[in-house]
Amino acid sequence: MTTYAQAGVNIDAANEAKRLISAVVASTHGPEVLAGMGAFGGAFALGPVLADCAQPVLVASTDSVGTKVLIARATERFDGIGQDLVNHCVNDILVQGARPLFFLDYFAAARLDPAQVAQVVGGVARACREAGCALLGGETAELPGVYAEGAFDLAGTVVGLVDRDRMVTGAGIEPGDAVIGLRSTGLHTNGYSLARRVCDLLGYDHRPAALGGLTLADALLAVHRSYVPDHETLWQAGITVKGMAHITGGGLAENLPRTLPGGCGALLRRGSWPVPPIFSFLVEHAGLSERETWRVLNMGVGMVLVVASTDVPRIRTLLPDADLIGEIVAGSDVRVE
Amino acid sequence: MTTYAQAGVNIDAANEAKRLISAVVASTHGPEVLAGMGAFGGAFALGPVLADCAQPVLVASTDSVGTKVLIARATERFDGIGQDLVNHCVNDILVQGARPLFFLDYFAAARLDPAQVAQVVGGVARACREAGCALLGGETAELPGVYAEGAFDLAGTVVGLVDRDRMVTGAGIEPGDAVIGLRSTGLHTNGYSLARRVCDLLGYDHRPAALGGLTLADALLAVHRSYVPDHETLWQAGITVKGMAHITGGGLAENLPRTLPGGCGALLRRGSWPVPPIFSFLVEHAGLSERETWRVLNMGVGMVLVVASTDVPRIRTLLPDADLIGEIVAGSDVRVE
Repeated sequence: MTTYAQAGVNIDAANEAKRLISAVVASTHGPEVLAGMGAFGGAFALGPVLADCAQPVLVASTDSVGTKVLIARATERFDGIGQDLVNHCVNDILVQGARPLFFLDYFAAARLDPAQVAQVVGGVARACREAGCALLGGETAELPGVYAEGAFDLAGTVVGLVDRDRMVTGAGIEPGDAVIGLRSTGLHTNGYSLARRVCDLLGYDHRPAALGGLTLADALLAVHRSYVPDHETLWQAGITVKGMAHITGGGLAENLPRTLPGGCGALLRRGSWPVPPIFSFLVEHAGLSERETWRVLNMGVGMVLVVASTDVPRIRTLLPDADLIGEIVAGSDVRVE
Repeated sequence: MTTYAQAGVNIDAANEAKRLISAVVASTHGPEVLAGMGAFGGAFALGPVLADCAQPVLVASTDSVGTKVLIARATERFDGIGQDLVNHCVNDILVQGARPLFFLDYFAAARLDPAQVAQVVGGVARACREAGCALLGGETAELPGVYAEGAFDLAGTVVGLVDRDRMVTGAGIEPGDAVIGLRSTGLHTNGYSLARRVCDLLGYDHRPAALGGLTLADALLAVHRSYVPDHETLWQAGITVKGMAHITGGGLAENLPRTLPGGCGALLRRGSWPVPPIFSFLVEHAGLSERETWRVLNMGVGMVLVVASTDVPRIRTLLPDADLIGEIVAGSDVRVE
């Protein structure tokens, strides 16, 4: 007699994983969450957040953490990967001025390890609390035959809110505006297939002199930074951000143009921000071409703001690690010189 | 010199996939979509839909189509799998009375085949149009080392809206209420790891006499039915649905209790609805135990409604394939006799 477990699916493991994560999921819930785990759909009462929003716009984004999951798995360090996921998604809607309301995660593997699921989702919940959003739902799936043995994938969706008047669209950007870079903690969630090839040769425990005592794993697993606090600071100070770009896959060269209106390009100056040593280490050991480097890695800038040049001094006072990395120019290219 | 393509990631394939799907994604967009593909986050103006909603509640759900993706891949039939995904998610929020506003999909594979992505996302978009929701965003990821060679996964998130007064919570359910079953088209999106074991022996092209000319692939790839039109019909007729349950993994035995209040169980009568022949075929050939069968497969019922028994005749007139499959009883168990 065949059982469902013999077909490769362990319903009890899924139930055990759900039991382990239920408390941490509930810790992200305020009174606006009407239904959470156990319900078919998570329910979120909009009333309170709509109170001071004249023209409410929902902004949503789905993303994954890419092959960073394979480094988490190889080093058995599962704490940060959930934070990476949430912060990545939250930054993606922040660029339009939206603040997160709720998040849903998707964890799938060939075989579910309930303790591993609990660690990963624990990180998701922690980042949700820090971002002030509810972990409203999610799915944990055991899919034998779809995933490589021992591997898992982690994706998620954030839904946020912005008043239409306050949406950041890039529309007011003009030549002469300043380009501000906010620093990344490292690769964030892009370029890991490349990083893994280098690490496969040297090992994750390798401590290159350039990393000042950190192992490759330490540097590569640095958590994707959330820029919600920086946005909040500028918001509170009444500073107008004309355009924002989250620097993910495609690097500065492909992401900054996404916020620029027609007729506007940007000129960025190398050396105007610090490039964390992990980048030069990877570039050197992967022998990557200059063009590809800038197309794949964030090179130390995780978020770009376009602002009036007259606002730069105030911004640099408010956000001590904000770097003036370039300016808007007529044209359509983003060039780094 | 290493290139990013040599590390297993083909950015051009991802861009080609995006190019192929852009028109079909745009076909799901009405004037409420302020930003779609190309933006960091999709933006959806809530104003019009909030007009007649006193206490707006967002209901959201993330799900995948499980290992049904492996049958799509084995038979190279990618059209239906996107519809399966959307309909599954839409049904999950429908049980709380919510109608879908927008959807985001997640497609990931070891290697991206742009034509395959286009077929899958084409199905996602078609189902979104049928459900009246926008395909607001999504992510297409190439993750070498995470997925088994040739395999892909497909997950998605739906966000819908319901007025709090009209949320379906199961709260008014009492002994004596009727349990109505709406028929499934087949396995929908659960039980496929089991089905694959049977098909691995017989082949997907096998035409069992019991299936009346259909191949195993035809029966197994039948599209997950959306119950949005049925819900709309009852809504328009002013019929109160006290509770609903989407019958997915866990079957009737585990899903129906999710809508029942304390003190209420259900007694279902076998033979009161038609069980499609694919179920008995699988049960016979997998040698599955009685208990597991009901824990894994929907057995022909895709959605359950709990209603006042006096409403049953009208419902059966409005929805010709609605079956009276049982009744609510005092207790806590769902039993099938």
